[in-house]
Amino acid sequence: MINNKKIILPKGFKANGLSCGLKKSGKPDLALIYSLIPALASAKFTTSSIIAAPLIVCKAHLRSAKKFQAVLVNSANANCFTGKAGIKDAQACVDYLAGELKINKNSVLVNSTGIIGKRLDVAKIKQAIPQLVAGLSDTGIHKAETAIMTTDTFAKEISLSLKVEGKLVNICGIAKGAGMIAPNMATMLCFILTDAVITQAALNKALASAVDKSFNCISVDGCMSTNDTVLVLANAAAGNKVISAGADFENFAKALEFVCLGLAKMVVADAEGATKFIQIDVCQAKNMQEAKSIALGIANSMLFKTAVFGENPNFGRVAAAVGASGFNIKEEQLKIKLGSLKGKQVKLTVSLSRGKSKCTVYTSDLTPEYIRINAEYN
Amino acid sequence: MINNKKIILPKGFKANGLSCGLKKSGKPDLALIYSLIPALASAKFTTSSIIAAPLIVCKAHLRSAKKFQAVLVNSANANCFTGKAGIKDAQACVDYLAGELKINKNSVLVNSTGIIGKRLDVAKIKQAIPQLVAGLSDTGIHKAETAIMTTDTFAKEISLSLKVEGKLVNICGIAKGAGMIAPNMATMLCFILTDAVITQAALNKALASAVDKSFNCISVDGCMSTNDTVLVLANAAAGNKVISAGADFENFAKALEFVCLGLAKMVVADAEGATKFIQIDVCQAKNMQEAKSIALGIANSMLFKTAVFGENPNFGRVAAAVGASGFNIKEEQLKIKLGSLKGKQVKLTVSLSRGKSKCTVYTSDLTPEYIRINAEYN
Repeated sequence: MINNKKIILPKGFKANGLSCGLKKSGKPDLALIYSLIPALASAKFTTSSIIAAPLIVCKAHLRSAKKFQAVLVNSANANCFTGKAGIKDAQACVDYLAGELKINKNSVLVNSTGIIGKRLDVAKIKQAIPQLVAGLSDTGIHKAETAIMTTDTFAKEISLSLKVEGKLVNICGIAKGAGMIAPNMATMLCFILTDAVITQAALNKALASAVDKSFNCISVDGCMSTNDTVLVLANAAAGNKVISAGADFENFAKALEFVCLGLAKMVVADAEGATKFIQIDVCQAKNMQEAKSIALGIANSMLFKTAVFGENPNFGRVAAAVGASGFNIKEEQLKIKLGSLKGKQVKLTVSLSRGKSKCTVYTSDLTPEYIRINAEYN
Repeated sequence: MINNKKIILPKGFKANGLSCGLKKSGKPDLALIYSLIPALASAKFTTSSIIAAPLIVCKAHLRSAKKFQAVLVNSANANCFTGKAGIKDAQACVDYLAGELKINKNSVLVNSTGIIGKRLDVAKIKQAIPQLVAGLSDTGIHKAETAIMTTDTFAKEISLSLKVEGKLVNICGIAKGAGMIAPNMATMLCFILTDAVITQAALNKALASAVDKSFNCISVDGCMSTNDTVLVLANAAAGNKVISAGADFENFAKALEFVCLGLAKMVVADAEGATKFIQIDVCQAKNMQEAKSIALGIANSMLFKTAVFGENPNFGRVAAAVGASGFNIKEEQLKIKLGSLKGKQVKLTVSLSRGKSKCTVYTSDLTPEYIRINAEYN
């Protein structure tokens, strides 16, 4: 596994991003990822029962088509809670883009992020699509990752390469996060591109496992979003021996997990208003579910998060969160080790003396700045 | 039901409060409630698996004795996560007080509130007990309610009277709250005194119902505490016909619920750093559990709470919280009505078009002041 310092877009992919006028600031707000070759796709969506219009369109396309060539994403507006009109709006963007790219409508995927409950300005998006398509390039991923940002303070990208029986396979991921980040599925937008040759089943399995160990182990504010998506496209341009099982699969899955975990950590590091990056290790749990639930219970405790912000080693709040977890953990089973709170990185270890399972969860502190950002966001 | 403007301590009760030196500020921190006549008791405790030492002592006494005469409460220290030593400390306070009052040790109940994980200074409490006992009076409830405060900005009391077949029965309740307030049981300390003649079964039933509709319907920060308790003492001094069932029971239960709901609302109104009192009505739910879970899900959404603080009518955050609730509510079933955010009182109505059940939950906004208080609290 080669961790690429410079981001490398896998073979056969192009990307672009620009400002179409959805953001009042004039910052980039429309991104396009394009694969020259139809690619397999696998996705994980929010488990919320209220999902955004573009996700409804995406899910329909993922059911009706087998291969995909384009992903269109806008920021500033989530196109959620917009009813049937919202679905038509998302479909209109897809249809228009398919026409410009001269590809099948069903091979276009779409997503949105931003304010909930407002109609999308389709005219602005349509007007910008020709320029967006014309500007597609091998280096455009930087523009795309900037265009999907909302309150993010930095663009999130990671790329690595691995050898699959002598052939170089590339994986590149971009993400946006910042707020409304909770586990139980894709907790932000993340797009991963790979030129690997892989079976659909292997791609699905690798993504499900990677998401479970990364995006489902982070929490900023415990608030699950309506739009969140982790999507991987695999266009087979690397020409490697097809990945389906065995060591090749394990290596690919490990690389995909590395990409997802790297992006997930960046999302936490860039949490709205955060001053601390907190790693919570829950160990000696009876099983994985117990370890994860307790770790997330602590991660979502406002009192714990404010204590970390205040550099206040109030381990009683950790005990309270563990006690409230519903797993009947007794005081005498519980050992809490809270590292120094002075730096940017904080590590909390909770040992339960109940078994051998362990889970690591990442979160941020809760600060007045988080409140300022979310009180004003509109 | 007569809502007493001036607080009336039910017959046969006395109370007192003073400073024994646990609070560095020198403010009152030790309270005593005393019944001249042994009284029935009923209590609801936190459902946390990690509970404070005084609760362990209390629960043992509630099992071993049938009647009770005294409740000793200190603030500033929760005597929780203090192991066996903490239990001995709580027992030492109880034993010493029983000696001073010349009553059975098992008839003394005890509670604590404040920082978790620090040993209680028993010497300070013992030293103050003679003066605390000597100062017991019919008007001492004001002193008691002040002495149980932590970050509360005002003392919480309510008193009312009702006629039970011609006899006047009094109920008086005091509470402390402020932070670490979440449903699923007693979410703060609350002591209710009544001179009613009532059966143990009727008292238990009335309290369980009242708590369910009041303290279990409020949330400040979603953090469940290790110490929280709602305790009612009934000393039978009113001489009414015994309350067991029928209209007398219904009237008493209604009065007890009124007391609990009144105190619960005061706790929310005095939430740490809060600038808004938010009422959330979820209606047209399939059943009560659905209505309550969804209402509490909204009440605990940091994004909703910060939006209210910012007077930002972001109803998308309500939709997101409903979608994340796990009840598979669809967008087309959901109607959201958010009243004006300009005043101190905010009302949110969520209609689900799924049934006839309704639940009302009370919460507060999330503010930078909440973070300041909890970042510094130690």
